[in-house]
Amino acid sequence: MPPDVLSATFAALADPTRRAILARLATGEATVGELAKPFAISGPAISRHLKVLQRAGLIARGRAAQWRPCRLEAGPLKGALDWLGHYRRFWDASFDRLDDYLREAQRQQQRKPHGRKK
Amino acid sequence: MPPDVLSATFAALADPTRRAILARLATGEATVGELAKPFAISGPAISRHLKVLQRAGLIARGRAAQWRPCRLEAGPLKGALDWLGHYRRFWDASFDRLDDYLREAQRQQQRKPHGRKK
Repeated sequence: MPPDVLSATFAALADPTRRAILARLATGEATVGELAKPFAISGPAISRHLKVLQRAGLIARGRAAQWRPCRLEAGPLKGALDWLGHYRRFWDASFDRLDDYLREAQRQQQRKPHGRKK
Repeated sequence: MPPDVLSATFAALADPTRRAILARLATGEATVGELAKPFAISGPAISRHLKVLQRAGLIARGRAAQWRPCRLEAGPLKGALDWLGHYRRFWDASFDRLDDYLREAQRQQQRKPHGRKK
């Protein structure tokens, strides 16, 4: 069974080299050689990473026979962001609680008589 | 080498059962039995999924000996959302282009002489 789009997207992002490739492509198209340059890994290893990204629909390859530059296809990232967005209220809620706590602590502090430090 | 936090988070999310478990826990704490109920998979398979989520810091287990309810820990999801947020301009840009195209198409339409359909 092929993985669903969201699973394929998250699996493709679960690797620092693949995320770095996407970050590089966010600045513009690049050839495989250019993409490989910053990484201390073999050509075949880069090709495997590119295949994972391509299967997940996160990159596309040009048709020019020799160069076949890669470009970012950001569409699937939107699906991933939308999924994660549903959980935003959890950390917003914990920040709200922290905020309440700090406000209350400050109020307590202000109620104390002055000059306690002496 | 242990995977970095972001890789562990994305890897944990790359499975529909694990995402469904997180969605269930977003509604409140649940025991392993309660979490397993909607899925046609074995107890050990659920336990493996829970271990992946726990190692990624996405769930925590209570200490009550018998129940040990699971609860959502949404912190790592924020890191994933922040990473994805950097790519937002790519789909915003394509919507902007679509918007321009539709506006231009509408303008062309309005310029046409009336009654062409007859």
